Amino acid sequence: MVAPLKVGLAGLGTVGASVVRLIDRQRDVLTLRCGRPVEIVAVSARSRGKDRGIDMKRLRWVADPVELAADPGIDAFVELIGGDGNPARAAVTAALKAGKSVVTANKALLAKHGVELAALAEKHKVALNFEAAVGGAIPIVKTLREGLAGNAVARIYGILNGTCNYMLTRMEREGLSFDECLKEAQRLGYAEADPSFDIEGHDTAQKLSILASLTFGIRVDPGAIYVEGITSITTADLEAADELGYRIKLLGVAVKTDKGIEQRVHPTMVRKDSAIAQVMEVTNAVTIDAEGIPPITLVGPGAGGMATASAVVADIADIARGVRAAPFGRPSARLKVSKKAPMQRHEGGYYIRMLAVDKPGTAATIAKRLAQHNISMESIVQRHSGPPAGGAEKGKGPVPVIIITYATTEDAVRKALAAVQRDKVISGRPQLIRIEKN
Amino acid sequence: MVAPLKVGLAGLGTVGASVVRLIDRQRDVLTLRCGRPVEIVAVSARSRGKDRGIDMKRLRWVADPVELAADPGIDAFVELIGGDGNPARAAVTAALKAGKSVVTANKALLAKHGVELAALAEKHKVALNFEAAVGGAIPIVKTLREGLAGNAVARIYGILNGTCNYMLTRMEREGLSFDECLKEAQRLGYAEADPSFDIEGHDTAQKLSILASLTFGIRVDPGAIYVEGITSITTADLEAADELGYRIKLLGVAVKTDKGIEQRVHPTMVRKDSAIAQVMEVTNAVTIDAEGIPPITLVGPGAGGMATASAVVADIADIARGVRAAPFGRPSARLKVSKKAPMQRHEGGYYIRMLAVDKPGTAATIAKRLAQHNISMESIVQRHSGPPAGGAEKGKGPVPVIIITYATTEDAVRKALAAVQRDKVISGRPQLIRIEKN
Repeated sequence: MVAPLKVGLAGLGTVGASVVRLIDRQRDVLTLRCGRPVEIVAVSARSRGKDRGIDMKRLRWVADPVELAADPGIDAFVELIGGDGNPARAAVTAALKAGKSVVTANKALLAKHGVELAALAEKHKVALNFEAAVGGAIPIVKTLREGLAGNAVARIYGILNGTCNYMLTRMEREGLSFDECLKEAQRLGYAEADPSFDIEGHDTAQKLSILASLTFGIRVDPGAIYVEGITSITTADLEAADELGYRIKLLGVAVKTDKGIEQRVHPTMVRKDSAIAQVMEVTNAVTIDAEGIPPITLVGPGAGGMATASAVVADIADIARGVRAAPFGRPSARLKVSKKAPMQRHEGGYYIRMLAVDKPGTAATIAKRLAQHNISMESIVQRHSGPPAGGAEKGKGPVPVIIITYATTEDAVRKALAAVQRDKVISGRPQLIRIEKN
Repeated sequence: MVAPLKVGLAGLGTVGASVVRLIDRQRDVLTLRCGRPVEIVAVSARSRGKDRGIDMKRLRWVADPVELAADPGIDAFVELIGGDGNPARAAVTAALKAGKSVVTANKALLAKHGVELAALAEKHKVALNFEAAVGGAIPIVKTLREGLAGNAVARIYGILNGTCNYMLTRMEREGLSFDECLKEAQRLGYAEADPSFDIEGHDTAQKLSILASLTFGIRVDPGAIYVEGITSITTADLEAADELGYRIKLLGVAVKTDKGIEQRVHPTMVRKDSAIAQVMEVTNAVTIDAEGIPPITLVGPGAGGMATASAVVADIADIARGVRAAPFGRPSARLKVSKKAPMQRHEGGYYIRMLAVDKPGTAATIAKRLAQHNISMESIVQRHSGPPAGGAEKGKGPVPVIIITYATTEDAVRKALAAVQRDKVISGRPQLIRIEKN
């Protein structure tokens, strides 16, 4: 029998406790699959006494996670502490420097210090695995790092935040307002007390920065991502999307353009019949557009103790088997700098919703401004709030106008809308949602 | 610079030529990703002179693929000849015996000789990779072999044959008959001149046998699979499914039951809102139900030169990186024998469509027979072919009766229907489609 892989685990929250249970339950199969047993031998957490439903007696307790990370009694270190600062960062650094392979589920740490940690892992010839950091149980990191090694990927996009997708699903299905949905999500534990990190798109951006690095060989850098959350989305947008054959999803998108890799997070109109549009509630999904072949989409649970634990255990199994790839798929020194995409140069179709002053010539004025900026309309719908009886309704106050444009640039759209606002034919700010072809 | 991985490739059809082109095109990225260059140095195919759109001059030609397989000038051998006999089998065997890692896209070879070849690969400590054999570009083999190492999977099911899914999609969308669809599929090159291998479910069964082995640690054995094709499916079934909230898909299913692993291929009713039901045309998909977490679904192109080539190149890249796992995820000697599932013990819901004699008491007779076999009905719909005007229609000839049952056993359903046939209240044979919960 080959010697077991001895694992030290720091962080015994829901995920950590699930990892301990899963390794226990799958002991025999893991041994068969890895060619050697996997054993958690020591743990570290904030509180020692807490009941976690696991047998703590057979696990050696190390109070300081950084000390555990470099412990001579372990071969691999699992970091489930969280956060981009210490002790998580110090512990992962200490483990790598001590020549121990590391598994982490910590997207914040990777988004901020991923390249530096990858370099350290490469220097010490150990693994740095983070399947659980993006998309929970979906094997997206392994797929990008190893499974699509031969493909030139043109674009990758995904639903990476369960909170936002849950809210958009409920708003769409039940016509609930954003605020009602948020309260409901908070009640069910799908949204934090302070939900801004999720609903403003930053969680998605951290995850996208990791996927974009793996896909395009660029340095992990959330700062290079244009980020816009879902707080401006109304039921009126969701209804209009539905009628036009679209759904609205918060997507993280990284795409190869002739100006470099464009990385962005924003609400997106996706065609209702696309695979990504079918993804509802807290489920996550990632679509990969490789050159020359139809898209590949991976769908599954993006969060939850067991889902995250299953990815952590798969990463541990790879270490037990001796599999080691460059953390971001190629040597960290060869990762290219990613510049922030200038969104004004973004090209694509747009959904525009405005409240137009209901008087003769308004539609003509809007159409003229768009034409002046070379924007072609695929459709324009003007709605009257009362019965659609025509003349009798005129002058009754603002009416929604919904426009779908053909591909144009963001710059042109913004300039045209600024002109429309100066014309005083609309009330308030227009809503603008980018259309993602799929 | 580390020495390149020298590859010999046998079989230069659409896939083989695409592999040569892809490795050419991705040369630099592959070198970065693998830490060494990948080079195709020698090839073998039936006809040397044929124009394949690739530069043959720089590739050494070896007339006999078996000779190429053991050639001292290569490190790894790619088999794209096809078929479960020689020369494919002899070539793969020769390569493994010569200590060379092998990549193959040959599902037939693996379905018939997979365990024996895996044992040979293990004995010689080389890789036997076959991502392209199932689901084309979908990274399902890697996911099952490595990505879900820690999960206890309860069930795996998938759409594994593009021809069948294409036909069911067209029949459903356009109301075309089976025969019309088949002709159309043949015209477009989606179905063979002799389509029986696809439409009778045998292609799906070969692929399922590979997935079931990876998932449940059983020996690859298509003989242990219950197989039923799509030839009995009519537009009437697809319409009824639609009304009841289902779609009909040809699924390969392997599921853990208390009687062992049940493996089956048959037309299946799947809920319209499930991920698998969204998969249309020639696209493939696989859903994995791991214990304790929501399903994971992988969707993508299941065939085509470039899609298959992309999986082959990913397998080659793993070899270049030195990754080697047991071909079926655990030592071949530890794979368990899979017994053929006795379908009469299959448990689940059923869709039943019958042509009932339109006379008083028919529905009561059918309901009585079902009740006698403890079958509960979720719904029963009796249709009149003319206007639904009631009494006036009676005695006008057979009318369709559609029943959805709650979970029961296949044995009970078959016995109840045999009794209904003996009662002479239906004309012809009833249609029976199993419902797969998802």
